[in-house]
Parts: sequence; structure tokens; C-alpha cells
Amino acid sequence: MIRTLALAAFVVAAPAFAQDAKPVLNDPAVLAEMGREAARLPLLASDLARTRAQLDASIRDGVNVPVPKDPGGGATHEQHRRNYQAIYGGGLLYRITGERKYADHARALLLAYAKLYPTLGKHPAASNQVPGRLFWQSLNDSVWLVYAAQGYDAIRDTLSPADRATIDADVFRRMADFLSVETAASFDRIHNHATWAAAGVGMTGYVLRDPKLVTRALKGSDGSGKAGFLRQLDLLFSPDGYYAEGPYYQRYALQPFVMFANAIAKNDPAQKIFQYRGGIVLKAVTTAIQLTYDGYFFPINDAMPDKSLKTDELYQAVAIGYAATRDPALLDIAKWQGRTVLTDDGLAVARDVAAGKAKAFPFASKLFRDGPDGDQGALAVLRDGPGDDAQVLVAKNTAQGMGHGHFDKLNWLLYDHGQAIVTDYGAARFLNIEAKSGGRYLPENDSWAQHTIAHNTLVVNETSHFAAKLKPAEAVAPKQLYFSGTGDTQASIGEMTGAYPGVTFRRTLAQVRVRGLGSPIVVDVLKVKGNAPARYDLPLHYNGHLIDTGFALKSNVTTRPVMGAKKGYQHLWVDATGTPDATNGRVTWMTAGRFYSYRMATPGVQVILAESGANDPKFNLRREPAIIQRLDGAKDATFVSLLEAHGRYDPSTEMVSGSASAVASVTQARAGDADIVTITLVDGRRVILAVADDASPGGKHSATVAGRAFDWTGPIGRMDREAGK
Amino acid sequence: MIRTLALAAFVVAAPAFAQDAKPVLNDPAVLAEMGREAARLPLLASDLARTRAQLDASIRDGVNVPVPKDPGGGATHEQHRRNYQAIYGGGLLYRITGERKYADHARALLLAYAKLYPTLGKHPAASNQVPGRLFWQSLNDSVWLVYAAQGYDAIRDTLSPADRATIDADVFRRMADFLSVETAASFDRIHNHATWAAAGVGMTGYVLRDPKLVTRALKGSDGSGKAGFLRQLDLLFSPDGYYAEGPYYQRYALQPFVMFANAIAKNDPAQKIFQYRGGIVLKAVTTAIQLTYDGYFFPINDAMPDKSLKTDELYQAVAIGYAATRDPALLDIAKWQGRTVLTDDGLAVARDVAAGKAKAFPFASKLFRDGPDGDQGALAVLRDGPGDDAQVLVAKNTAQGMGHGHFDKLNWLLYDHGQAIVTDYGAARFLNIEAKSGGRYLPENDSWAQHTIAHNTLVVNETSHFAAKLKPAEAVAPKQLYFSGTGDTQASIGEMTGAYPGVTFRRTLAQVRVRGLGSPIVVDVLKVKGNAPARYDLPLHYNGHLIDTGFALKSNVTTRPVMGAKKGYQHLWVDATGTPDATNGRVTWMTAGRFYSYRMATPGVQVILAESGANDPKFNLRREPAIIQRLDGAKDATFVSLLEAHGRYDPSTEMVSGSASAVASVTQARAGDADIVTITLVDGRRVILAVADDASPGGKHSATVAGRAFDWTGPIGRMDREAGK
Repeated sequence: MIRTLALAAFVVAAPAFAQDAKPVLNDPAVLAEMGREAARLPLLASDLARTRAQLDASIRDGVNVPVPKDPGGGATHEQHRRNYQAIYGGGLLYRITGERKYADHARALLLAYAKLYPTLGKHPAASNQVPGRLFWQSLNDSVWLVYAAQGYDAIRDTLSPADRATIDADVFRRMADFLSVETAASFDRIHNHATWAAAGVGMTGYVLRDPKLVTRALKGSDGSGKAGFLRQLDLLFSPDGYYAEGPYYQRYALQPFVMFANAIAKNDPAQKIFQYRGGIVLKAVTTAIQLTYDGYFFPINDAMPDKSLKTDELYQAVAIGYAATRDPALLDIAKWQGRTVLTDDGLAVARDVAAGKAKAFPFASKLFRDGPDGDQGALAVLRDGPGDDAQVLVAKNTAQGMGHGHFDKLNWLLYDHGQAIVTDYGAARFLNIEAKSGGRYLPENDSWAQHTIAHNTLVVNETSHFAAKLKPAEAVAPKQLYFSGTGDTQASIGEMTGAYPGVTFRRTLAQVRVRGLGSPIVVDVLKVKGNAPARYDLPLHYNGHLIDTGFALKSNVTTRPVMGAKKGYQHLWVDATGTPDATNGRVTWMTAGRFYSYRMATPGVQVILAESGANDPKFNLRREPAIIQRLDGAKDATFVSLLEAHGRYDPSTEMVSGSASAVASVTQARAGDADIVTITLVDGRRVILAVADDASPGGKHSATVAGRAFDWTGPIGRMDREAGK
Repeated sequence: MIRTLALAAFVVAAPAFAQDAKPVLNDPAVLAEMGREAARLPLLASDLARTRAQLDASIRDGVNVPVPKDPGGGATHEQHRRNYQAIYGGGLLYRITGERKYADHARALLLAYAKLYPTLGKHPAASNQVPGRLFWQSLNDSVWLVYAAQGYDAIRDTLSPADRATIDADVFRRMADFLSVETAASFDRIHNHATWAAAGVGMTGYVLRDPKLVTRALKGSDGSGKAGFLRQLDLLFSPDGYYAEGPYYQRYALQPFVMFANAIAKNDPAQKIFQYRGGIVLKAVTTAIQLTYDGYFFPINDAMPDKSLKTDELYQAVAIGYAATRDPALLDIAKWQGRTVLTDDGLAVARDVAAGKAKAFPFASKLFRDGPDGDQGALAVLRDGPGDDAQVLVAKNTAQGMGHGHFDKLNWLLYDHGQAIVTDYGAARFLNIEAKSGGRYLPENDSWAQHTIAHNTLVVNETSHFAAKLKPAEAVAPKQLYFSGTGDTQASIGEMTGAYPGVTFRRTLAQVRVRGLGSPIVVDVLKVKGNAPARYDLPLHYNGHLIDTGFALKSNVTTRPVMGAKKGYQHLWVDATGTPDATNGRVTWMTAGRFYSYRMATPGVQVILAESGANDPKFNLRREPAIIQRLDGAKDATFVSLLEAHGRYDPSTEMVSGSASAVASVTQARAGDADIVTITLVDGRRVILAVADDASPGGKHSATVAGRAFDWTGPIGRMDREAGK
């Protein structure tokens, strides 16, 4: 009954609509279809209900457009966030449901912003980020604009010319000018913050029918093309669609790229934006999805580890990507997400998922080159299979990745059976939680999370790569020397020169499938060449509860020393130390009912069992264990380590299987021009891996190992021997 | 094709079947029906497939009946476990599928046992438990017998008289005699181990048609009724179906009770076993289910916290309970379990769940009295609602609970939004994981987990209740003075005298619903009366990451002192200390995206933030945080604490709401004959709770609070005031 009345009001009002203000970002006819179909489409029904509930609540709360005051997480911050969501949702809901109250609410909010916005200067809680006006950083202002522009677009033709002129001028044009002309330096950066600004300004340009704004967005504040959206597409993604800052920020960066690209495709098809640079926008979407485990993004660099594909950015990216490609694998992701967006593209996704058109997303071993030209290292991803539970190894051989990058060249991660096993701390931050430094990066992000010792890679003389300085770190990148993502011995080889003066280190990480073992064995050969005797530390941060060690421990049970004074070492407690011999360098832990045995075959190494959390007066750090191999006084060294997942403990049945490792020993040796790693299994079989110094794929190598000739091609050779042979 | 041949073999063999050996524990006709229907019944289909796969693997592995050698978790231990499962599963599968190979495999295993068993003496890995023959403790032998008897029952009429005589005599009669006559002292205990023995012996009696064995099982080794199954039913459960050792062992103890009761009901209906003692067997089943949160058992006493309703014991209990009662709420539990057992009763469950007959299990606030007569304290469970996510408070006012009991009178736990919030360590044990003390209880179970400081209750002078001695602990129990599980102020009052000489303490725990707050506020008033000035410590063990505190902390950032030298204190690191004033005694933490603020309104208290893990050279302990209120030099004291769940952090949207507590302050005062707790909310409203000294339900009380008369009846009064009133 109420609905009928609202529709009636709508019809009466219709003649006043201005045709030159009709929506340009979402097709109103398709949104109206959505209104009729959504109840029958699982991916839309609940989202529509949720959005309606949010908007109805927002309408009940009335118009609340406060004078900006608080930093991230604070009351005014959250209110302005809620407001752009209400403007966006209100506009879409009006088109979907035909109910005028949603358009009215968006209008009322925008008119309030039109009063407030011209009065604002620099945000009072501005810190070291570029300050915004509505928010403490201009980035949030850009996000506000991207969403509000879409909401405004949906209702603009329902407004009186006077209202439209007011909102055009005092909200959108002012914000677009603030974010482009008035802060041109940040607008013209090659950085995701600038992409949000470009998207906001460009979408505003389409909505206001102002080509100048669009040009500014596409080609930078001076229109030269040295900056702007197209240049960002050239430089921010590698040819493989990898975003320089890593998966967490790739997700975030993706949204303005896909949303603005979508707006360009709709309003300026001649631009062929989805074909630009070999289809880089869509490649960036599928690459983002590849960089997940069980739906969660690999948390390298400044990442929140709880971030999954279930985020607004990926709902948008999947819908826009699907509309542009009709790739049925994207429907598989939409199914996992369990929802899609309330846009014309979202309707296509929901319809086709409901029609059973989804096909499994092809998760696979893949190399993602870094750098605009693909020559700045790479992220190497080795997958034991396409399933959610399959073991995945990530070798972080990427370049620095700007200000959010960590100092951890050739770091690695491992996932197994649905769990993070070899971990990355990610960012030290409680996002938007005001009591924790206003929700911003914590001091411990600088003092711990960014440092090399907080990662699973080589530390020389207790200092971080590049002495933890951004500028030198950005100047050089690792080299990806080799990658093989097929067969029973998948491997990546990366090399880093310049992280420390006079030091080069090379790391081979291999996922070695062995007949009869449920999971591949990970082999890690880290070879360092230095120019002076040094202290080498190789940490492994893991997730699990220590079960036992093969060597004796000296445990610090009443006083745990702190490991060092700086570069992250001040945050590590030393739980225990030990000195394994050639055969017993094993640490076994348990994670979610599965056992993991880490074996170290590095002669002369001392092992330190440590835990993060020292020098943390405000309890800002998570307390997580690490195993550190320490080698003192060597110039050149070869760290050989092995990680084996084995067995199960089932709490339901209380049954334990395979709690003992299937590996009896690991040794390293030199033979010919190669390092030879011999893994002897408990059943007597041996797996012999050779890693040649020459990493070229066609190089021929031979060596004599245990009295037998061993020939192979390419950097990695493998020879399996049965027991007693 | 293979199946057809097997069936043919079956038919040919049929005439040889002995009719006086036909199954007495499971109806073969019903099992045959299951074989025809299982594929269409979700609760059975996967279990049948799994059991088939297990049996097929066992058949492939051949008969492996090793000489016993290893303790729990070791190879021979696990093999004998697998064998009884193969005998049990083989018997049932033979009846379900008609495939003779399953019967043959069970027969072959049993014949191997008939050879081995007569040669065995005391198990070589026997420790301080009663030794078994097949296993390191006789308990496991009893379990073996319970299952093997059922498998044997299913195939006994397929055997030649000679095989039958051999297995009867050399396996079952010998084991039954070993477990009853030869170890009469343990058989005649009132203890769950004895129930397993009784069930094994009694079921063997039915299978062998030997009433003497049945009588021995029902009435003890001398047949007098002073021991045995019926006496166990009299003494091991309280009138409310609570099992003395707590929920974890209730689950375990339940299985022989329900299985043997089921066998009695089928073979001796005149015994009316399910009506015995007011239907105590079925009450024990529903009580076990009530003692769970989100399917996981409350982990008080020696419990593994990962134990849920998804265990064989509860599959059996639910099926047997349903067959006996047809209570549709049990079907709801079976649905949550996702499977049922391959017995005639399991078929009824699977059929009725498939037919949609399940009704929500009525989880509710309830008092579970402890002790055979219900006068040995109680477990008080307060639930904010029946849902899985509803907040649940557990007050552990139970008696000691035998050897698996912990020394923690008036301890409490809290669950909220699907998470354990105020926690119980449970047992220090890695069940069946050989590298951790052979999978047995760890030394830290005695040095940490059992002690009072490891729990959320009062410690006097740094020693545990009853000085951590079992005998005095068993001599006295707490008193449950009051319980109210309805309305907006649910509460429990327990009192303990005798845990320390000259000390009585009383604890009121209330779940207080406040208009406008999403969750109830927990109010904890712990009142102690001593006979000399003492050190009082009141710990709160929580699960979460500390966000901030209302008072200044002195943090031990480079050297964490150990809190004490014994009684569990030696396992606590002191992270920080602080001395709150009257208004700022708040600690806020975060658990799974939700905030928890703990407020302490105990004058003169010092607060210690601690973490378990000191003096733990083998990494046996989980490292978990605790907040300890310490009061020195008082004789009488009143600890008032409050726990408030608030807000949400959603990692998908990065939105934070309600991160600040809704409570402004808490104060305590005396007025009349009562303690008055005044909770002032941030919005100015006040909730005033009065706890009278007189705990009688009809007592009339009055006091003047903030200038107003306050009258109430019963121990707990409540007065809410609007802001400014």
C-alpha cells in the first residue's frame, strides 16, 4: 500500500525530470529489472534486504552531516562513511525499488553536504598523510566522492534544477577541484590514492557532463598524460596484473580502477578501456583472485591478514569483470563471496550464478612478474592443486612496493590444509580501532612489522634489508631467475643483490611431491655470498604449537632474554636455544590437527626459538613463535631447510596418524657446480635434489652423487632412489 | 558384479548358520533395511561410505594383531584401536550390505586375538593407571570389549561351532573375566572406567548367552549390588543427570551407559532400564547436550577443549536416546552432528531427520545439581537465549569430581557470539600425541591446569583450594544458594567453605539484560570472609587481544618476572601491573571482531596482567592472558567485577561500531544487609543491583540507595533509573 503511494508520487513527479541529467553510470532500466527479480536471486536477495535495512535505518536516523573532527574509526569519520554509503545505496535503491524516499534521503544528505563542504578547511585530525576535508586523509575523501557520485548519478534527474545546481557546484565540483587542482601533487602521483582521486574526479566528470574533469582524471592535472588514470594503468600494474604494493593493496587499489574503467566503458566506448594495455584492468582482477588462499589475500607488506575476497572491492571487481568478459570462473568466485553488487553488472552475475553457469576458478601455480615492465622481480606462487585445501607456497621475490612495502626480499609463506603455516605478520595495525593509535599504523609497524627479522628471510648482522630505508629499497629489485609451476618438482629461484652492501643471496624454494606422502615436501636452499664474515639469521615464523625438537634445548624458563636492541630484534623474546648436529635439526609443531616438521641441514647453525611481544608496553603485537637459524662468522653459507606437513589429529575420534615425520634425515653437499640436497625417508627411499649455480633453463649439468652419475638440464635436477639402492 | 558374487556366497553359506547364535544387540532385519535406504539418507550415506572405506582398507592391510608394546598414541595402541573398530564395523557392515567379506575380516581378526590374548600379561607400558593387557590402561581394554562384542554379535551365527567356541572362550570370556574377576577392585569402583568394564562384560554376557556375566555387570563382581552398573547409575549421575567429573567426561562416560542400557532394554525389557531412577540414562544424554556451547563441551576439569558433540559417544547417545524417546529435539542435535550411527537406532534417526521431524533443541538456563542426591553443589548455566551465538555464563559450583577434578570452586566461564571469552584451560594434555608425554596428562596438568590460579576464582595466599589435595577436596562441596534462570536478571549464588581453613567465600554471578544493549552485562560479586589478613588473588583468564586499559600500566617490556614459585604461579609471566582508582579499573580486549570490557570495582586492588608459559621448558602450555585482581592484607573483602560485550569490527567492510564501552562506571557500597552495585551507563542511566546477605528466595529486603528507598524480595534486587533520576 505504502509502496503504491510512493510509486504514485513518483509518477506525478516524473514530468519535472530533466532528461539531460539522466543516469550515466548504471542503466536505470536494468536496475528496475533487478527490483523485480532480486527476490529470486540468492546472490542479490540478502544484499538488497541488507541495503534496504541500512537505508531505512539511515532515514530513521535523519540527516547527520557532522563537522569533521575525528581520525579513522572516530565518530565523525564513521558518520561520513555511513553517509556516502547512504547516498550510494539510496540512489541505487531508488532505481531498484522505485521508492522515492530513497532518492529523497540521498538528496537531503547531499544538500547538507552542499552547506557544510564550502566551509571546510584542512581536517583537524590530519597527521602525516595528505589531509582531506571530510576525513583525516584525502584518500577517504576520494572514496567518498567515488561512491557519492554514483548515488548522485542515480537521482540527479529527479532534482529541481536549483538543487542540482547547488549540489553540482558545492559538493561535486568543489570536491573534484580539491582532489585534483588544489592537491595536484598527490593527484599526479603514481599511487593508489591518486587512482581513487582520479576515479572520483572522472566519474564526477561523467555525472556533471564535464569532459574537462574526465580528461584531468585520465591524463593528470595538466592533461599531459604524464599522470592520471591511464598512466597509472601503465605503471601501477605489472604486465601480469600484479600491483606493486602487494595483494592487500591490490584489492584496495582495484576498486577505483574497475569502477572508473566501467564508467569509461559505458560513457566513452571508443576509449576501449578494457582492452588498454592488453586488458590490464581485467588481468588485475584475476591476478588479485589468484593471490589468495581459501579466499584470504596473501598478507605480504602492510596487510591486514583478515582480508578476504568478501569485500566490497572484490564484489565490484567480480561483477564488472564478469560483465566485461562473461568468464564463468568469476561466477565461481561470486558464489564463494555469497553476494554481488546492486548494479546492472551485479544483476548479470546473480542471474548467471542462479542459472548454474559457474565454472571452477582455475587456481594454479603461476609467476606474477613485478614492475611496469615485468623486470622488477616477481611473486612466485606454487600450488599443489586448485583446491582450497591444497598446499600453496608463495615466494616473495617482488620489488619494494612503495611505502607499504616491507624489507623482506626473498621472503616466503606456506599454506596447508586451509591454514597459514609459514606466516607473514602483515601490518601492525588495528584498522579503524580508535583505542589503538586511532586505527592507524602502530609504532610497531615501523619497529617490528616492516623489519626483515619479522619475516622468513635472511638478516645480515642484525640489521634489515636496505637498513630499512625506503629510497635505497626502491632502487633495486630481486631477480626471478627461474620458475617452474608444473610436474612433481615445482620451484622458484630468486636472487637479491644490494639489500646489504657486498652481499648477494639466492633462494631456491621447491615443492617436491614424493610418492606415498600426502603433501609435497618444501625444500628451501638459501645461498649467501658475502664480502666479510658476518652474523646470518634466517627466521621462520610459524603458526602452531611446538610439539618437540630433535635436538636438546636450553630453555629460558624464568627469564627470557630479549633478542636484540633494534631493527625488530627488540620485540623478540628468546624462549630457548639449541645446537643441532648433522642429523637432528628438527622442530615439529602442530597446527589445526596437523603436524609440521621443519628440518635444518645448515652446518654450524645455532637455533633460537623466539616469540614476538617484547618491548611492547601497549600490547600492540600479536605473540607469535619463530625459529631462527643463526650462523656466526661465515662469509659464504648455504642454508638448507625442509618443511614437511604430516599426519592428523582428529579431536572427534581422538585418533592420531602420522605424528612422526616421514623424513629420516636431510643433508647438503657440493657436487660439480651444484648444491645437492639428499632427503632420506624413514622407509629408506631417497630423494636427491640438485640446485645448479647456473640458473638458465637449458643448462646441462652432471655430478656424481653417492657413487652414481646424475645428469640434469636446467637449474634443478631430481633423482629418486628406492630403499637400499 | 563383485557384490553379486558376494551375495551368492552369502546365500550358499546360509544353511550353516546357527540359530542360537543370532544377533541380540542389533536387529539384522533393520540393518538390512539400512543397506537398502542409506544412499538416500544424508546422515547415513557418508558414514556408511566412510566405514566401508575404512573396512576395505583394513581388509587390504590384512590381519595385524601386534603384541602390545606402546602407550597411548603409539603404534600398537593405535592398531588395537583400529582393530576393534574393524571388528565392530565389519560385523555391522556385513549385516547392512550382506557382503561376506566383512564378516570374514572380523572373524579373522577375532581368531588372531584368540591366539594372542591368552599369552598376554600386564601391558609393558603400564604406568600409574590400572594396566590392561591389550592397552596400557585397562580402560582401553574395556572399550575394546564393548565394541568388539557388538561386532562379534553381528557375525557370531555365521561362524563354525569350533570358531565360535574358540572366540567365545579365548577372547570374550577371558577378557570379561580379566576385566571383572581378575581386576575386581577396579571393576567394583564407582567410576566411569568401571562402567566401561561393566558394559563390556554385560554385553559379552548377552552375546555369549551367559546370564552370570550380565548379573556381574549389573550388580558388581560379587553380585551384591553394592557395585556394578545399577549402582553406578545411582551414584555417578546427579538427579539432574550431571556426571561428577564434568561435561568432558560425561560425554565419555555416557557411551557405556547408553550402549549397555540399550542392550539391556533389548534383551531384558522387564528391567525397564530406561525408566530406572526417573529415566536417569536419558536425562544424562540431554544434560550432556545442555552442557555445550556451539556444540563444544564446557571444558571444566580435565577436559580437552576441542571436544564437541561430533563424537562417537554422542552419535550413539543421540541415536539410542531417540530410539527410546522419539524426542524430536534429539534429531536437531543429529542434524548438527551431520551423521548418525550404523545401527538399527541410527536408521530411525536418519529416516526421521530426512522426513523433517527435527525440532530445535531447547537450550535453556538451567541448574544442574551435583552429587548422587543433588546436594553437592551444582553447575549453573545461564543462557541469554537458545541460539548458538547467545551469551552463556557457566558457574562452576560443583563438587570436586574425583581425580579429574580441578581445584577451582566457584570458577566461572563465559561464551559470547560463538567464542569462548572467559576461559578454562582444561587439561594440560595433547591427547594421543606420543611426543607429548606419550599422549597422557602432562606434568603441567599437575603443576598448572589443576591449580586454582589457572582458573577464574579466588586464591588465598598463593595456594590452591584444599592445597590441591584430592581427599580433602572430595570431602566438602560448595552450596548452591540461589539460582534464577528467567527474566532480565538471571543469577547464580554459590558459597564455599573449607577450601581454605577459616575462609568462606560466596559468589554471585548475574547476567543483567539492559535495554538498548545488544548483550547482557555480567556482574560478579565475590565476597570473602577470612580469619586473618591474607593475600587474595582473583584471576580472569580470557581469550582475546588486549586493546587498552583505563588505568596506567607499568609494563615489563624487557624482563618479565615470573609471578611465583609454586601452585601454578610459577607458570605465569607478569606482563604489566597497575593500580586503578575508583573509576578507571577497566581492561578492554578484542575477540573475533567483538570488544569485551572488564571492569573492576574492588577498592585497593592491584591489577596484574599475566600470561601462562613460564617454567615450561618443553613448550607444553598454551600461552594465554589473564587479568589478576590482587588485594593484600584484607580479612574480609568484596570483589566486584563487570564484564560487558560490546561493538563489532567487521574485517570485510572495515567498519567498527561500539568500540567504546556503554558503561561509564561501576561502584560498590553496603546498604542495609546488602551489597549494592551501581552501574552507570554512558547515557546517564543507572542499573542498581542489590545482593542481600540472606540468600533465601522469600527474604524481604530494603535499603536506601542514592536517597531512595529500594525494596526487594529474594537475594537479588534490581532498580533501573533513567538518566538524571
